[in-house]
Amino acid sequence: MLIECIPNVSEGRRSEIVEAMAAAIRTVPGVRLLDRSSDRSHNRSVFTLVGDADGVERAILALFERAVADIDLRGHQGEHPRVGAVDVVPFVPIEGVTMADCVALARKVGAAVAARFQVPIYLYEEASADPARRNLEDIRRGEFEGLAAKMRTEGWAPDFGPAAPHPTAGAAVIGARMPLIAYNINLATDRLDVAKKIAAAIRHSSGGYRFVKAMGIKLEDRGIVQVSMNLTNFEKTPVFRVFETVKREAERYGVSILESEIVGLVPSAALMSAAQFYLQIEGFKAEQVLENRLST
Amino acid sequence: MLIECIPNVSEGRRSEIVEAMAAAIRTVPGVRLLDRSSDRSHNRSVFTLVGDADGVERAILALFERAVADIDLRGHQGEHPRVGAVDVVPFVPIEGVTMADCVALARKVGAAVAARFQVPIYLYEEASADPARRNLEDIRRGEFEGLAAKMRTEGWAPDFGPAAPHPTAGAAVIGARMPLIAYNINLATDRLDVAKKIAAAIRHSSGGYRFVKAMGIKLEDRGIVQVSMNLTNFEKTPVFRVFETVKREAERYGVSILESEIVGLVPSAALMSAAQFYLQIEGFKAEQVLENRLST
Repeated sequence: MLIECIPNVSEGRRSEIVEAMAAAIRTVPGVRLLDRSSDRSHNRSVFTLVGDADGVERAILALFERAVADIDLRGHQGEHPRVGAVDVVPFVPIEGVTMADCVALARKVGAAVAARFQVPIYLYEEASADPARRNLEDIRRGEFEGLAAKMRTEGWAPDFGPAAPHPTAGAAVIGARMPLIAYNINLATDRLDVAKKIAAAIRHSSGGYRFVKAMGIKLEDRGIVQVSMNLTNFEKTPVFRVFETVKREAERYGVSILESEIVGLVPSAALMSAAQFYLQIEGFKAEQVLENRLST
Repeated sequence: MLIECIPNVSEGRRSEIVEAMAAAIRTVPGVRLLDRSSDRSHNRSVFTLVGDADGVERAILALFERAVADIDLRGHQGEHPRVGAVDVVPFVPIEGVTMADCVALARKVGAAVAARFQVPIYLYEEASADPARRNLEDIRRGEFEGLAAKMRTEGWAPDFGPAAPHPTAGAAVIGARMPLIAYNINLATDRLDVAKKIAAAIRHSSGGYRFVKAMGIKLEDRGIVQVSMNLTNFEKTPVFRVFETVKREAERYGVSILESEIVGLVPSAALMSAAQFYLQIEGFKAEQVLENRLST
């Protein structure tokens, strides 16, 4: 069983504090810290860790222990919106685990954090029972500074924990979601309008695929444009379908695809499904992949 | 580090003997027996195991110990050609290991088997230093029954071990090769001549791709034909290039591809390269695949 977890914490400047949080995660047996990155202007750090449900739960509790002790949001400044010392904690199913398992884990960890650290918890995305509280942006609106007032408002009692913010650590948003794939397609043109029109055609918000966020941007140094995307559920809106649609839409403007790129990590299954689509492979089972046999 | 090894042994009927060989492999720590299959008419069994170099070496020595004790080729009958009790042992590089490492391992295991069991060893494929002795078929020609005479012939002294066959276990062929992918493409037609012409166009022996073996066959029950292939080096002759060539050749006869299929195990990289080709992904690194990060 493999669950990915990508906690975002509100500290990106004091490297010794970030290091202590990374160390706390690393001490948990059966958990691997795959990546960490800090952004000074955001004053924020992102950890990527994987493990089974028990391991990931222990790692998140260890992370909260350090963050609640070391971060005081009353003096926190940074460009990125935030509502808590540990701001967001998504659990992501990778292998041998369902979304329902990750939702259950989010609720379990949320209850444990609230009980142990007196931090109010909001459940988001798949773990949210309330449609008005699914989106991270909606929960975070008002940020730490507006949190006490917001929590007194109708409909904003937390899912777990006290009815008021933790004085220094604010609140935390915990949930479950599919892996997010950062996927860009570069077009062999410098026409920004073409990239913007294609982005509008494929993104959910303007009528496109349900699990695509997209925008058209210019890559000034290369003299080309890019359709920059987040694919938020590669099982339901697969990479190959997005690629083929962008290619077809570009043809309408006489534009070719120069290349595509995957930024950061991608689950193996997202690319395997593209191979199966293009090679028209029938009856293929994940167990036929040699590497998958090793982990079962 | 991950090496695959697929020993073929000359016993496919007495299940207790085959079971004892499987058990001998399983007792070695760090080695996993992924698959085993026995064929009664061939009177032959094939094991698929993986592990690091030390583990795989120990497993093969344990297998030889059982096979030399339990199999007597003097009374052996079966449809499949064979020259030894343990007939063929290929080592295959899968992850974090080079072909040169597998060649070195084949030599080390060959020397150890010869010293311990007095079985003469022929090195084959990438492990062979002699072009006339690279092909398994050339080494095996004459089989166990003709082995004593063949070994007295110029050029057929073994690479390791005694100059005459082991009285009951014969000789063994040990070497290193790339993973073999059994790949079939089904055509939406019942015209066998089309499948045969396409097979001839793509296979090495008649002028096609270097690492493709192919034949055209009829799938009687489905009323269609198939280009049935072995891809013997997917890095140098990739799956997607073979697929695209078959598709293009089929077009010339007005025939479409119905589907393709992968039989048995396939290394992840063979399908990843297809995804990268069709999605035109630039600058992709294997470390971006989440699952690959777990094993490093």
